[in-house]
Amino acid sequence: MKFGLAAGALPLPGILLSFTTMSLKRSTVQSLLASQELDREVLVKGWVRSRRGNKYVQFIIVNDGSTIHTIQAVANAELFPEESLKDVANGASVAIRGQLVASQGKGQAVEIQAAEITVLGKADPETYPLQKKATSLEHLREIAHLRPRTNTFGAVLRIRHALAFGIHQYFNDHGFFYVHTPIITGSDAEGAGQMFRVTTLPPEHPPRTEDGSVDFSQDFFGKQTNLTVSGQLEGELAAMALGSIYTFGPTFRAENSNTARHLAEFWMIEPEVAFNELEENMDLAEDFLQYLVRYALEKCADDLQFLNDQYDKELLDRLRSVTDNAFQRLTYTEAVEILKAAKKKFEFPVDWGTDLQSEHERYLVEKHFKKPVILTNYPKEIKAFYMKLDEDGRTVRAMDVLFPGIGEIIGGSQREEDYDKLTARMAEMHVPTDELDWYLDTRRFGTVPHAGFGLGFERLVLFVTGMGNIRDVIPFPRYPKNAAF
Amino acid sequence: MKFGLAAGALPLPGILLSFTTMSLKRSTVQSLLASQELDREVLVKGWVRSRRGNKYVQFIIVNDGSTIHTIQAVANAELFPEESLKDVANGASVAIRGQLVASQGKGQAVEIQAAEITVLGKADPETYPLQKKATSLEHLREIAHLRPRTNTFGAVLRIRHALAFGIHQYFNDHGFFYVHTPIITGSDAEGAGQMFRVTTLPPEHPPRTEDGSVDFSQDFFGKQTNLTVSGQLEGELAAMALGSIYTFGPTFRAENSNTARHLAEFWMIEPEVAFNELEENMDLAEDFLQYLVRYALEKCADDLQFLNDQYDKELLDRLRSVTDNAFQRLTYTEAVEILKAAKKKFEFPVDWGTDLQSEHERYLVEKHFKKPVILTNYPKEIKAFYMKLDEDGRTVRAMDVLFPGIGEIIGGSQREEDYDKLTARMAEMHVPTDELDWYLDTRRFGTVPHAGFGLGFERLVLFVTGMGNIRDVIPFPRYPKNAAF
Repeated sequence: MKFGLAAGALPLPGILLSFTTMSLKRSTVQSLLASQELDREVLVKGWVRSRRGNKYVQFIIVNDGSTIHTIQAVANAELFPEESLKDVANGASVAIRGQLVASQGKGQAVEIQAAEITVLGKADPETYPLQKKATSLEHLREIAHLRPRTNTFGAVLRIRHALAFGIHQYFNDHGFFYVHTPIITGSDAEGAGQMFRVTTLPPEHPPRTEDGSVDFSQDFFGKQTNLTVSGQLEGELAAMALGSIYTFGPTFRAENSNTARHLAEFWMIEPEVAFNELEENMDLAEDFLQYLVRYALEKCADDLQFLNDQYDKELLDRLRSVTDNAFQRLTYTEAVEILKAAKKKFEFPVDWGTDLQSEHERYLVEKHFKKPVILTNYPKEIKAFYMKLDEDGRTVRAMDVLFPGIGEIIGGSQREEDYDKLTARMAEMHVPTDELDWYLDTRRFGTVPHAGFGLGFERLVLFVTGMGNIRDVIPFPRYPKNAAF
Repeated sequence: MKFGLAAGALPLPGILLSFTTMSLKRSTVQSLLASQELDREVLVKGWVRSRRGNKYVQFIIVNDGSTIHTIQAVANAELFPEESLKDVANGASVAIRGQLVASQGKGQAVEIQAAEITVLGKADPETYPLQKKATSLEHLREIAHLRPRTNTFGAVLRIRHALAFGIHQYFNDHGFFYVHTPIITGSDAEGAGQMFRVTTLPPEHPPRTEDGSVDFSQDFFGKQTNLTVSGQLEGELAAMALGSIYTFGPTFRAENSNTARHLAEFWMIEPEVAFNELEENMDLAEDFLQYLVRYALEKCADDLQFLNDQYDKELLDRLRSVTDNAFQRLTYTEAVEILKAAKKKFEFPVDWGTDLQSEHERYLVEKHFKKPVILTNYPKEIKAFYMKLDEDGRTVRAMDVLFPGIGEIIGGSQREEDYDKLTARMAEMHVPTDELDWYLDTRRFGTVPHAGFGLGFERLVLFVTGMGNIRDVIPFPRYPKNAAF
């Protein structure tokens, strides 16, 4: 099929798409770069990353978000006098129709010989915030609404998507059911962290009871409610009926932590499996994490290569260290002995009964074993009330999975399924049983051994992308004094 | 391999699992029922649905949540005297080891000849809330923490899972990226509904400014924040970089609606596609919904058959009416003419310019066209500010997809990509432009035509399961005066 423009029909930027263009289906940059079928008419739409050239020919580099790669459109000066391309600038959106051909230049296999170029939306070089010159990740955080247009954040967001999909794929393939546990919760009993209050009471003059305190019975839900810190307890209810379940939803911490590792709003994955004990819980966590890292290596090869080259030359090696090694399993007690015998001087002392710090976790993973580690059987005093007591009465069937560069990436446990032992632990730890009566019903009626864990999604994305700050692996981070966009 | 118990090793309920049992891997009920491999030793774990029989033989019916179906274990009185089975009652959890054999009875293809039965957790028949006798959906809502153990809610939750997975599968297959838009938002500009406030200020005595008003600058985020009503605006930002995106997250409405169709907390799916116009948006919505209903029909055949037989004999027919018919597309103006000419007397009058009521939508779908309908080009006054103005200046490129029994299941539009037109509409509708300056940047820099829609996930589950009340298709419903569990 012959095509092209008569001399009198020179396209001008900003004009409406012609009928020819409209009837041709848009191809993504990704599909064009992967295409074996050359010498055909194609239509690409996207954003200009750059334009360069001379008075004979101009090269327009276009990205449409489908891949980190760009496609090059070649605009011949006979068809496109330079003044007709003045708005084809960095950040502008364009539709380019032309012939897909083998590229003459190096760096790309195919390119488009442009027949028609339409500027859909300009981007004034004077004011467009994403200029070619390198900009810092800190600055990009200020313009988080535009940063997905950069190579780095495009890569991070595509990897984030792939990991999310891989999580659903894994669980679906393994017979798990996705359960949506509530975001607004009337219970604050788990004690996993400080909570945000959710309310519709007027802030200036809330209704008061006779004794002058705020009358929460008039609040939307008839009582004080908060944003969830974990879906685990509700997840256990579902596992006691459906067998194997997982959650994947937002969780919240109202903690004043202004660090590169904390968010006030983040996403968590919490599988829970009836009849699983600690050993099977570890098997699940290890297989799951290896699957996800392998999945990313396979599906996001280009994005990971970019991040490896640009930010962190050891990224791909670190990812392969997870997929290629069985995780080292040992007890907390054994780990404490290793740490006490270590030559390294730690900032925080190590003593049986105290929680391990990030420096200890990373020493075990990065220096001592040089692979991921699963620590088990922690002292009961430093773990949650619902973890199953070991026979020695001193430790619980907890497990933390520790990763290089990250420290704890998963925390989980076998749960205490015995009603009497569970309520005794709750009394010891001052967890009110009346508020959790519904939870205790699982132990009253047909209780079974069960186990599960929590994976912080952003921790996983941080690990896989190699980014240094957790605010850079979620599109719109929430932290103290920041809820922009 | 020979197995079985010597006479002196009779299993007693409540004893620990023997070594034999422990070393055999648990099979799910679903895998056993689908198994072609008979006459082998198997181990099943689950909850007793019933036990019946006589002094020679007892039949124990077990479900483990992996399927709506149960497996029957046959306990011979020689191995299991009746008194050893007294705790094998409805709701108790058991582990049963035995031979998987072809069933002698009717109603099941295979059964287990029990060799060992262990009660893992009792369920006292005097107090266990889920007794055999039929119980109402209303009552089950009061014990939402246990209702997943019923056939009905097991089916609903498995279908809910399948639909959620189908959504991710569809978008992943079509090159969309999953984007997590923020749950806590500083913007309340979209006006989609009343919002919940999120705060850490002390409710009794919040800090005040000099003029006596609450000092939100001291709140966690340094200003007043709310729970999101929609991720669309942030989704548009991402689509302007990644091309095709979708959200799938919780959204909130603080409306005092105590109906069978409203929840205060619900999940929403919002795809947004750069370069799509209204026509392509309709194509996407239709293909997507047909895919999902087809997916459920295929993956959840048994659960849907159960709901069809138990609650709604027209359910499967209604689902097929969606997959087998192209959706009828017409404009709002055409629909108003049909409704005005209708013989049916409506409760609410129909006049051009007023919003259609559920009775009107259902008349079009159920009586007039007898298939799903997509209405387009609504009057601008009854739609949101961001919808693209039609050339007539009176209507916008909105689209609502209407389903039988449900009414509106999807609402969407092509977006106004022109900066001047958009800000003019915002001014007309008193939407503050300064708060949405970040959103307007998409129209300042490289703007493109784009379109998207929102699908209420619970509306979809309601349609596919045929349930009558939206509180019965989410595990833990939130509505006025209710945030239990």
